[in-house]
Amino acid sequence: MDSIEAVFRISGHAPLARADSILLEQTVETPRAVAERNAYVREYLMGRVARVEPHPDDGYLATLELPVETAATDAAQFLNVLFGNSSLHRDVQLEDFRLPATICRLFPGPRFGIEGIRRILAADARPLTCSALKPVGLTTVEIGRICRAFAEGGIDLIKDDHYLANQAFAPFDERVRTCQDVVEDVAARTGHRAAYVPNLSGTPDAVRRQAESAMERGVAAVMVAPMLLGMPLLHELCTKVIDVPVLAHPSFAGALRIKESTLLGKLFRLYGADAVIFANYGGRFGSSPEVCRDVADTLRSEWLGIRPAFPVPAGGMDASRAPELVRFFGRDTILLVGGSLLEAGDELREATERFSESVRVAARALRNDQP
Amino acid sequence: MDSIEAVFRISGHAPLARADSILLEQTVETPRAVAERNAYVREYLMGRVARVEPHPDDGYLATLELPVETAATDAAQFLNVLFGNSSLHRDVQLEDFRLPATICRLFPGPRFGIEGIRRILAADARPLTCSALKPVGLTTVEIGRICRAFAEGGIDLIKDDHYLANQAFAPFDERVRTCQDVVEDVAARTGHRAAYVPNLSGTPDAVRRQAESAMERGVAAVMVAPMLLGMPLLHELCTKVIDVPVLAHPSFAGALRIKESTLLGKLFRLYGADAVIFANYGGRFGSSPEVCRDVADTLRSEWLGIRPAFPVPAGGMDASRAPELVRFFGRDTILLVGGSLLEAGDELREATERFSESVRVAARALRNDQP
Repeated sequence: MDSIEAVFRISGHAPLARADSILLEQTVETPRAVAERNAYVREYLMGRVARVEPHPDDGYLATLELPVETAATDAAQFLNVLFGNSSLHRDVQLEDFRLPATICRLFPGPRFGIEGIRRILAADARPLTCSALKPVGLTTVEIGRICRAFAEGGIDLIKDDHYLANQAFAPFDERVRTCQDVVEDVAARTGHRAAYVPNLSGTPDAVRRQAESAMERGVAAVMVAPMLLGMPLLHELCTKVIDVPVLAHPSFAGALRIKESTLLGKLFRLYGADAVIFANYGGRFGSSPEVCRDVADTLRSEWLGIRPAFPVPAGGMDASRAPELVRFFGRDTILLVGGSLLEAGDELREATERFSESVRVAARALRNDQP
Repeated sequence: MDSIEAVFRISGHAPLARADSILLEQTVETPRAVAERNAYVREYLMGRVARVEPHPDDGYLATLELPVETAATDAAQFLNVLFGNSSLHRDVQLEDFRLPATICRLFPGPRFGIEGIRRILAADARPLTCSALKPVGLTTVEIGRICRAFAEGGIDLIKDDHYLANQAFAPFDERVRTCQDVVEDVAARTGHRAAYVPNLSGTPDAVRRQAESAMERGVAAVMVAPMLLGMPLLHELCTKVIDVPVLAHPSFAGALRIKESTLLGKLFRLYGADAVIFANYGGRFGSSPEVCRDVADTLRSEWLGIRPAFPVPAGGMDASRAPELVRFFGRDTILLVGGSLLEAGDELREATERFSESVRVAARALRNDQP
């Protein structure tokens, strides 16, 4: 029978026994003797410790085979079998997982992914740029003004700050109408078609209403924070509600002991995100270049026919780092720069133009370097 | 203006600067100079570092005042402002938070809580008992048989194993019908009214359908895992869909860089859970008695008029520990014992009776000890 392979990093003195107890926790969650009384459970649902090997740095990697039968019923249950109770063990980290092709049918994966986003933005093989409408607290008119400077300055994706919800000072529908008008107006006048990306927030009903209202208004993409909203809602939005690309924000995602590339690179992608924001190295979050490379590579890797998704490095990026970041992440990337552009104040459009141009120049150098 | 007080545990050498940068992250997420350009933002949305003090063990506690204006729009945004991006900083843990009374109106809190669950179960001031239908993989008929032994043995709450979803071997509707029939039949014959508590799992639409179907069938309570489903869905279920008590399961909640009592004791309760399962000391999860006491006390504490919720210690509890656990947690507790009872096999009803009786005896001793 097909299995999900889950790789856990464990510490401790008795890794084989530890792996075995995690296997029980993630499968039948009863004493082994109780579970084995039933023939079907014994035969098909107990899983297996495939191997336990030392981790290069510290501790051990335990690879467990978990039964698809218990996991594959729904989007919440999949997470539950993958890392539900074991997340409560302080010495266990979900390192990676591998899926049998059969289970992929249950998941949307990116419906657009890198290729679809490029098509919608009419952007050929170059890094894309992104900025954020912030700070929270501005009125809709003030937000619209920043949006215009970004669009005129050549930004590809103009996203809401993730603190923008449906506050009284810039209500969702009014903000979407204003910003979408701005990007359409700039496109008509200059030919540069920026995508305005509203942030969806609230309970499932509210998020669904916001998504429908924003798509009706013609937005080219939307943003959600899957760990705030719940991963199953991302799944439902991508399979039933949203027919534009989805940009995933990592807010609240740090609360779990899941390796970055596994949570942001595989799970977010599997559940339907077309582009995933993550904390870049050299910014506010102290990520390392290795972790960032790992997240980006994972999002773009070949994986069971699931479309690749855009990595979106972010988090206190200085616009002047564009050449370095283009070299580091390559062309299939979206560079998200916010505060660093906004510091330009009245010169926002000009600073944005310089940033956009520096990305184009760096992308050309990239192409010339490559065969 | 009203503020949310968030207490973060931080490490590092420059705690004042660190507190200041976390404040920026959780409020305007732009360089201070950019945010302060706007009078409204500067005046109302920048928050404040209230104090930074050494933590008794290690590091520092930073208390920040965060603006209600940005947080109070919806159930996802509240989490976002409380610990969204800062969860990505590896050196930051959410330790505690305090709410102004005004914001409580946005949250359901337990609709039943300790008193409501006692009323529904007709259980006076004694500890309640709970067990789980497991392992996953049993047919509906086999599950029904265990349910009957638990009900006849005097268990108060008989919950689905959290790995039971809508699998083919025991489909949700069939399972609910069977188990609810069993507890009603046992109640009619013996007078002991156990509550069957089905586990709801899936995307928001599926969970809503399951909740409605289970309530139609007459179940006395339901179980959800808020971190698997998403906290905003818990909020929506409690405010719009579910009119029976909600038992919260901690799956996927782990490792949290949120202090246990804050996530399980305050957030789950605030969002509407009436009873919260947590990893007990002396079981599989290596929790300490101090942490368990803290979670239980927090769930039951006076808090802005929000109803107290039942603590449900669980996770590899041996039934023989009932007297100790009753002494430790007192009468406002639900003792959840699963595998330890199931080990009795054909003697399940008798083992369950002994467990139920030992809780009653321990509870009487408790009352006699108290004035």
